[in-house]
Amino acid sequence: MEQHVTTAQEEDTAALTDVCRYRIERPVYDEGYIQTQLLHRRERCPTTLRQRLAQHVQCSSERAKAAALSFLPIITWLPSYPVKQYLVGDVVSGLSTGVMQLPQGLAYAMLAAVPPVYGLYSSFYPVLLYTFFGTSRHISIGTFAVISLMIGGVAVREAPDSMFYIPAANGTNASSVLDVEARDARRVQLAVVLCTMVGIIQLVLGLLRFGFVAIYLTEPLVRGFTTAAAVHVFVSQLKYLLGVKTQRFSGPLSALYSAKAVFSDITSTNIATLIVGLVCIVLLYGIKDINERFKKKLPVPIPGEMIMVAVSTGVSYAIGLSENYSVDVVGTIPVGLLPPALPHFSLLPNLVTDSFAIAIVGFSMGISLAKIFALKHGYSVDGNQEMIALGLCNFISSFFQTFAITCSMSRSLVQESTGGNTQIAGLLASLVVLLVVVAVGFIFEPLPQTVLAAIIMVNLLGMFKQTRDIPALWRTSKIELAIWLVAFVASVLLGLDYGLLVAIGFAILTVIYRTQSPKSAILGQVTDTGLYCDVAEYEEAAECSGIKIFHSNSSIYFANSELYVNNLKEKTGVNPAHLQAARKAQRNLKKRKQHKQNSTQKKEAAVKLDMDATHSEVMSDSQAEGHKNGQVTETHTESDSEMDRFLEPLTSIHSIILDWTPVNFIDSVGAKAMKSVIKEYAAVDVQVFIAGCSRTLLSELATLQFFTGAVTPEMVFPTVHDAVLHSQAGPTTNHSVL
Amino acid sequence: MEQHVTTAQEEDTAALTDVCRYRIERPVYDEGYIQTQLLHRRERCPTTLRQRLAQHVQCSSERAKAAALSFLPIITWLPSYPVKQYLVGDVVSGLSTGVMQLPQGLAYAMLAAVPPVYGLYSSFYPVLLYTFFGTSRHISIGTFAVISLMIGGVAVREAPDSMFYIPAANGTNASSVLDVEARDARRVQLAVVLCTMVGIIQLVLGLLRFGFVAIYLTEPLVRGFTTAAAVHVFVSQLKYLLGVKTQRFSGPLSALYSAKAVFSDITSTNIATLIVGLVCIVLLYGIKDINERFKKKLPVPIPGEMIMVAVSTGVSYAIGLSENYSVDVVGTIPVGLLPPALPHFSLLPNLVTDSFAIAIVGFSMGISLAKIFALKHGYSVDGNQEMIALGLCNFISSFFQTFAITCSMSRSLVQESTGGNTQIAGLLASLVVLLVVVAVGFIFEPLPQTVLAAIIMVNLLGMFKQTRDIPALWRTSKIELAIWLVAFVASVLLGLDYGLLVAIGFAILTVIYRTQSPKSAILGQVTDTGLYCDVAEYEEAAECSGIKIFHSNSSIYFANSELYVNNLKEKTGVNPAHLQAARKAQRNLKKRKQHKQNSTQKKEAAVKLDMDATHSEVMSDSQAEGHKNGQVTETHTESDSEMDRFLEPLTSIHSIILDWTPVNFIDSVGAKAMKSVIKEYAAVDVQVFIAGCSRTLLSELATLQFFTGAVTPEMVFPTVHDAVLHSQAGPTTNHSVL
Repeated sequence: MEQHVTTAQEEDTAALTDVCRYRIERPVYDEGYIQTQLLHRRERCPTTLRQRLAQHVQCSSERAKAAALSFLPIITWLPSYPVKQYLVGDVVSGLSTGVMQLPQGLAYAMLAAVPPVYGLYSSFYPVLLYTFFGTSRHISIGTFAVISLMIGGVAVREAPDSMFYIPAANGTNASSVLDVEARDARRVQLAVVLCTMVGIIQLVLGLLRFGFVAIYLTEPLVRGFTTAAAVHVFVSQLKYLLGVKTQRFSGPLSALYSAKAVFSDITSTNIATLIVGLVCIVLLYGIKDINERFKKKLPVPIPGEMIMVAVSTGVSYAIGLSENYSVDVVGTIPVGLLPPALPHFSLLPNLVTDSFAIAIVGFSMGISLAKIFALKHGYSVDGNQEMIALGLCNFISSFFQTFAITCSMSRSLVQESTGGNTQIAGLLASLVVLLVVVAVGFIFEPLPQTVLAAIIMVNLLGMFKQTRDIPALWRTSKIELAIWLVAFVASVLLGLDYGLLVAIGFAILTVIYRTQSPKSAILGQVTDTGLYCDVAEYEEAAECSGIKIFHSNSSIYFANSELYVNNLKEKTGVNPAHLQAARKAQRNLKKRKQHKQNSTQKKEAAVKLDMDATHSEVMSDSQAEGHKNGQVTETHTESDSEMDRFLEPLTSIHSIILDWTPVNFIDSVGAKAMKSVIKEYAAVDVQVFIAGCSRTLLSELATLQFFTGAVTPEMVFPTVHDAVLHSQAGPTTNHSVL
Repeated sequence: MEQHVTTAQEEDTAALTDVCRYRIERPVYDEGYIQTQLLHRRERCPTTLRQRLAQHVQCSSERAKAAALSFLPIITWLPSYPVKQYLVGDVVSGLSTGVMQLPQGLAYAMLAAVPPVYGLYSSFYPVLLYTFFGTSRHISIGTFAVISLMIGGVAVREAPDSMFYIPAANGTNASSVLDVEARDARRVQLAVVLCTMVGIIQLVLGLLRFGFVAIYLTEPLVRGFTTAAAVHVFVSQLKYLLGVKTQRFSGPLSALYSAKAVFSDITSTNIATLIVGLVCIVLLYGIKDINERFKKKLPVPIPGEMIMVAVSTGVSYAIGLSENYSVDVVGTIPVGLLPPALPHFSLLPNLVTDSFAIAIVGFSMGISLAKIFALKHGYSVDGNQEMIALGLCNFISSFFQTFAITCSMSRSLVQESTGGNTQIAGLLASLVVLLVVVAVGFIFEPLPQTVLAAIIMVNLLGMFKQTRDIPALWRTSKIELAIWLVAFVASVLLGLDYGLLVAIGFAILTVIYRTQSPKSAILGQVTDTGLYCDVAEYEEAAECSGIKIFHSNSSIYFANSELYVNNLKEKTGVNPAHLQAARKAQRNLKKRKQHKQNSTQKKEAAVKLDMDATHSEVMSDSQAEGHKNGQVTETHTESDSEMDRFLEPLTSIHSIILDWTPVNFIDSVGAKAMKSVIKEYAAVDVQVFIAGCSRTLLSELATLQFFTGAVTPEMVFPTVHDAVLHSQAGPTTNHSVL
């Protein structure tokens, strides 16, 4: 204990040595005693199914009010909105975010394969609605690169260019013209109906309290997935940056096809487009860097994207980039909003699986950001209500021709860092967008597409930085690295939808793998402490003679019960099958010996030697594994002296203790395997004890009828130490009885 | 202790009371001490990668010999074959099994949609080969209903009747004729190449030591699946029993289509066929029953199937069932064996997934039976070698026109019960089949197909009896019942291939579900025992004042870490967010109070009351969950007396102990969640201790950089009791320091 006194904190502990001693003295308990004498279950008035049902469906005005409140959180927070304290922050933050919504809306519409103005719609309606339904005060709802790309993939798949060629009017089929308008109209219909479906799915999952589905999107998975999305987005924007006109691909390997298409056509690069794009990238990156470095000094981050858009629109208009240099520009932006219209539900059947993917990715992006901010600012967000809020935003907005949205990381960070305190900031941002849409949208018409591509690409930087996870994960967890890599590679190669599916499947399998590849060890006691640890690892751990304590850190169920049994036999070095073989040989020998005794009663010593030899033979006969049993043969020599009265013990190990503290559940296959191994050991006179079962496990075992026949609760002990003490005393008892 | 003395066994224990006491006295340990002072890792000479590689790829003559031996187990056992002891049993058993192989071979060929003689080939070659490669001494390799049905499904799918109609010669397209010969030839090609592929897959999986894949086929899954297979087989045989000529279906819902087709055509039932079939069923069932009842008295079970075949062949020949009553008979059986031929590998591409399903089902049937017999007779079978053996049997045999086989339950039971001791019995059985094939096969030509259908149906009885699992599983394990039902329903509706896939997926998900739906509890000490159990369940468990011990029987990883944290906050009743809110209010109040003190220094008692009121308000403000914190508000009243010197503690709970004995692994998401919850609690002055970590978990935590910042190894204790003792002493220490 003196050595223990090392740090200041520990000195205090030392001063309290008397108080802080671990002192227990009690009889050794087994489950037989515990269940009948020591513990008594509390009596409970069992609630009937009817009562429970009644409780559940009880309908009171309070409940109704609470439900209504939970659907419209704005009712809770708006009346107590501290105007003085919050309003300035919210206004500044709302304007900053709104100014970001504009260029991002235009740019992400390109990703979603719809005309730019729909990006503006999508930056208005859902943002407005979220003010009413959302519980997170800091996230910025709106267009998001990954989701937009997924929508674009679906739109391109369902309405490929090839569907919209109209034969040239002059009747020759050599050059047909792409009907861009019809194509875009179709793609908008697709994006809109997809948005409706995404909204419905999110709404239903939220109402069913299925918010938990997002838990399967573990962090390494999401980061690998979004990095892959960044690759897709980057590749898809290359053609705009270069001004190359290539087809857009979707489905598995689309990233490769797209890249190949662009590079094979790289000679047709429009130099003006490329220059404008590169200049934008450099400037944007510079501004981003400045914003980052002078975070604390700048009252509001420089709205680089907005500046780029404004300047480039001006330049483009002034020098006629579109007419004189044939740089692709945004083109027609209608002024004003569209009247609500029913989505084209007839397009739905092909989109159901995509909707699920988008709904879940969208939700998991939103909730993870919302939780980060909630934790930082000390409020709580309700996962299910967030799901419902997103669902309502998507569903209602889709009637006004928007595509699916979620929250964007970059905007949310700006909204929070510029002093946004409540959903009011989002409301103001949406009003900024509205203003542009109804008043001055048309001024963006000369904006070069390459500028939008530049904005998108610079926004990808953060995602690409996630590749730094790889070395970090390599150090901390190989399994999580595997999840990251699988999510990344699968999503890059198979596309985001299948990639996500594969990644989730893989993440689930890693859990199975963990439960199935337990580490097993033989434990020994650290002298006089009652603590047991791996004898192979720690010098202080000493095995108790005649007892093997087997520990395997996993539950026991169908997929690993066999492994458990194999590890048990291997690690303890006691294999009942081999001992049985030895026993058989012993019996034969004994018969022979008794026969001999009847006739001569001599030469006992010689027989003993003979017998040992026979054992060794049997051992080496019993195949390659025989060498592991060296111990077994050895021990025979020791115990031979008893052989006149009994068949001598086959091994020096009289007890095996299974440490079941790590066993959280067991199924019927596992229970059967355990019962049969206990019987196998009993047949060769090795007692098996079970230690450290939790009470939950014990009741599971009882239901599985584990304690029948040879297996009794008296074989179960609350701690390993109890079992060791019992089995140290045990064999003596047996001997005295015999 | 006196009460403990109840049974005879326990009296012995009581006599040993002195020996058998649990007595530990030592200082309280924390991980900081354990890691630095108590335990020392054993030094290990680390083996370099090169050494390990060298060890692995080392090539010695011994190794080569062992490898050769393991491939041809016959070399090990044949030389030491105890002729006197075993031969008689093997001969009797071999003949009995051979006599069963014949009718079953003919019948199962019907299931596999190939002419009967191929069933005989399949009952010869693989059985012969298994003698050389197999390690199980008691299983009877050969045709098996489930596998045959799966093969038939594939054959029918790839070569449907509709492919083989030839327009009638007279040029009218009204009645075209089915080219049965071409169809059957094609189906044989398909079945044969499928067999090759199954063989290759099994061989490769075996060589790669992938025998473990069978573990995913847990018992309830296999039983549900085989029951579904029995349904399929039964439905497919109905038409032969009734003599109705309907199409054979494959793929999802095929069982329903088949049943519908048969019943819609039931008016064309051939009465003679039906009568022969029903008589056979009744007689076979009777004989089966007799065999079962007089198991011990009969030296050899009555070969009912063979008798039926012989008698019905005779009767059919005598009264001309085929010609006079148009009963369908087996038809042409060529005499002799076919020369070896290359399978039609060009047919493979469509069969790959089916091959995997058949390979794995086949293997898992074989290995499960082999293990049962091995356990019963005390020898061991090697899963991987069995896989290799089956693979070789299938692969080599397929060059001689066989379809895929595995072992059959019914035949294996006969082989074992009639005294079969070694693979010699199988060898003899195969010779019986060979004799029939090369000499007298043609005599089975008049055998009615309905007799074969009867044989198949009676053999299904055992499988149908598996439905009795349902009530048994309902009592023992709902999860396993769910696996059974999913396997059954999916396999009946989707077909055996997809059904199996769905069932395996479901079985895996149940494991995830188990790790994800932990039971959590607050533990209390059973006085003076050092044992802790659920206070809600047991009367004797008493909570230690100021300490909450939280137990949740699961590992902590991405899919349940959030749930863990939620449960922790709910069960302990200590929610840091609510306490933070209370703390804020407290601070505000304190400021106000200090202000007041400066001015008046009076009315302290009044302020106290005021403050309590404020707390209550804050509590009820903080949403619906507020009511759970009733306890929190209560406790403030108690500790108010200290408020002049400190901000009073926010809750009477000063320590939370997380019992991590059931935690087998933790991932980065889990570790982060735990760190953040520990920080949250630290912010409201609640200390969190961790107890019962296994050493494996501790090193995982270290790799995940868990012990950084506020989280130190000094917060970790080897047992819950250590942590309780420490935290009981802890707060006092803090106070004295302050």
